[in-house]
Amino acid sequence: MSHIKTKTDGQVLEIKVDRPEKLNALSPQMYDDICLALGELDRNDELRVGLIHAEGKHFSAGVELDKWAPIFAAGKGFPVPAGGIDLFALSGPRCRKPVVMAVQGYAYTWVVEMLLTTDVRVAADDTQFAMLEVKRGIYPCGGATLRLPQQMGWANAQRYLLTGEAWSAAEAHRTGLVQQVVAPGEQYAAARALADRIAAAAPLGVAAILKSSRLAHAEGEAVAASQLFDDMPRVMASDDAQEGVRSFVERRSAVFKGK
Amino acid sequence: MSHIKTKTDGQVLEIKVDRPEKLNALSPQMYDDICLALGELDRNDELRVGLIHAEGKHFSAGVELDKWAPIFAAGKGFPVPAGGIDLFALSGPRCRKPVVMAVQGYAYTWVVEMLLTTDVRVAADDTQFAMLEVKRGIYPCGGATLRLPQQMGWANAQRYLLTGEAWSAAEAHRTGLVQQVVAPGEQYAAARALADRIAAAAPLGVAAILKSSRLAHAEGEAVAASQLFDDMPRVMASDDAQEGVRSFVERRSAVFKGK
Amino acid sequence: MSHIKTKTDGQVLEIKVDRPEKLNALSPQMYDDICLALGELDRNDELRVGLIHAEGKHFSAGVELDKWAPIFAAGKGFPVPAGGIDLFALSGPRCRKPVVMAVQGYAYTWVVEMLLTTDVRVAADDTQFAMLEVKRGIYPCGGATLRLPQQMGWANAQRYLLTGEAWSAAEAHRTGLVQQVVAPGEQYAAARALADRIAAAAPLGVAAILKSSRLAHAEGEAVAASQLFDDMPRVMASDDAQEGVRSFVERRSAVFKGK
Repeated sequence: MSHIKTKTDGQVLEIKVDRPEKLNALSPQMYDDICLALGELDRNDELRVGLIHAEGKHFSAGVELDKWAPIFAAGKGFPVPAGGIDLFALSGPRCRKPVVMAVQGYAYTWVVEMLLTTDVRVAADDTQFAMLEVKRGIYPCGGATLRLPQQMGWANAQRYLLTGEAWSAAEAHRTGLVQQVVAPGEQYAAARALADRIAAAAPLGVAAILKSSRLAHAEGEAVAASQLFDDMPRVMASDDAQEGVRSFVERRSAVFKGK
Repeated sequence: MSHIKTKTDGQVLEIKVDRPEKLNALSPQMYDDICLALGELDRNDELRVGLIHAEGKHFSAGVELDKWAPIFAAGKGFPVPAGGIDLFALSGPRCRKPVVMAVQGYAYTWVVEMLLTTDVRVAADDTQFAMLEVKRGIYPCGGATLRLPQQMGWANAQRYLLTGEAWSAAEAHRTGLVQQVVAPGEQYAAARALADRIAAAAPLGVAAILKSSRLAHAEGEAVAASQLFDDMPRVMASDDAQEGVRSFVERRSAVFKGK
Repeated sequence: MSHIKTKTDGQVLEIKVDRPEKLNALSPQMYDDICLALGELDRNDELRVGLIHAEGKHFSAGVELDKWAPIFAAGKGFPVPAGGIDLFALSGPRCRKPVVMAVQGYAYTWVVEMLLTTDVRVAADDTQFAMLEVKRGIYPCGGATLRLPQQMGWANAQRYLLTGEAWSAAEAHRTGLVQQVVAPGEQYAAARALADRIAAAAPLGVAAILKSSRLAHAEGEAVAASQLFDDMPRVMASDDAQEGVRSFVERRSAVFKGK
């Protein structure tokens, strides 16, 4: 039985890490299952947003190192299952839809690395983030070396990467890693509310934003600027653009169809 | 009659958005006029700094969408007038002189995108920033997808880009978008004070800083490092470098000429 | 006699700027001596971390401009001594080991530029940071134009670069430049404690983190992602990786050898 539970609720695909009896330790099978869920989120036209969360007092205390050791030792990277999307966003395509994430308690190693690939994040105020690898004789290989300095600032990130020390939800908020800090137990509902607001936004617009922002990040402002208007004619001609104007004139919330 | 008023005061070119009766809605003509003002700032040797501000309780509630719709639908980008500099800095050269900006009240869509191209920023504490496009069925095409994640942090930016929700002056300050928050009505004076301090600085030094910082941003540290000393011989031989040393020895403020 | 004192204590190389009678003004000779110390840190297998600090009430009020003027005027950059590593990280290789830095009092011009090349930083709460160049008729040529906007945010950095105004330790902490602010006089001990924690971490892991993070910064996420596992087989096969697992099972701190 899988420890990754998925549920479609409205246009949100909820992905739950559900192995609290082992502090949600990540197995290779769980890695596969999350990748496959992201693949489904990407392909399924009914889905607009992903929401990653975890059962229990802690998001996860880390990975099942004995099961991962041979994979790390092979030095080939994470083996992404067919139809899946790498949850560490190190190889292959990205999911074209936004992902919101909620964390609580221990949020160690792979949790931080998955968090760094998501788009909006909520933390319970008891969250303890840590990259413990240098205390275990190894180094992070899920993307923290690439993204933590970029998202948290060089020296803020190196302080935690190089010492293995934990940081708090408040520090994560201060440095931009999470957008909202709530009482323990409320992180799922807060993240769900954010996911719902994104699901209510115009899907073509949301997709164009993610695409342009990622292109700017990967290839620089000039390249992204040169492609900024590529999606505009189609989006301006969409039903949703008309609904946007109509709803504004009629002073009501728009109802978008992604067409 | 134009809704963009320019005024030269000392060595500062003030550019005022002045259409409060329409909440300073941006028309294509106003876009042209701001671009032309930036072109003048760039060319005129008497000018050292630009200052962008707006008349009224709000900076702007957005653009005149009906007038812009055909331009967006054409998908060719913003048509920059001859002699002008794109106020969204998406195509063509940048203004080589710094620009300070003051905002208040509604600072929606294009205001945020213009702000992101400026160098120092002041906000009244009643400012409400928002990228509303996804609530109107479209997406931002003035550079926010490129620059908001870069300047505010990935997930901070996506939270607002993907939901269309507003953020406060305090949040803008916390995340680095603005440098100073003041009482409503004081934003112009505070921005003017900052512009005056830049205008008093050595113009050759100021130009070299902007040039080097932009190069590093566009092409990376290594390229910028390799060109860092290119302007040094000329600047070290300038009258202003001598005035810098003299004023230091004489314990007075330097008076620079840009030569 | 050199004004740069080095001391090996445990596995930390302490590099002290020791010219308080001249407010630690940087001479070309002192530049050479710091570069040589960084070269030693890089080469010496017994050393794991560098710690840069300064004697006296102030870290430094700036450089001995009369001695540097001919070097700047030549426009060829900083002449790095043989066996040394450029303390401004503008040319040549980087030191492969982390550097922690402690600052206090005046931290002007070159101090900020050296700080920007280090990995973890502590400031006394009386620290005044400033890039004074534009008040002296010149511009910063030690890397601040490249790195201050990247590490502090574009507009936060330009506010200080373009005006020459000072900023506080609190502002440096708020914007990510320093990680810890302590009472004056305690900055050395706080930085030393951080250096000790890094020295206790797995050296192969620490080296792999710095290498990957720098590659991502210099060449982007995709390039760094493609090389992320290159060091993994060797690190997973190291004695330290075994010690990491053993110490975890035995619930004790690991003792790493860098092998």
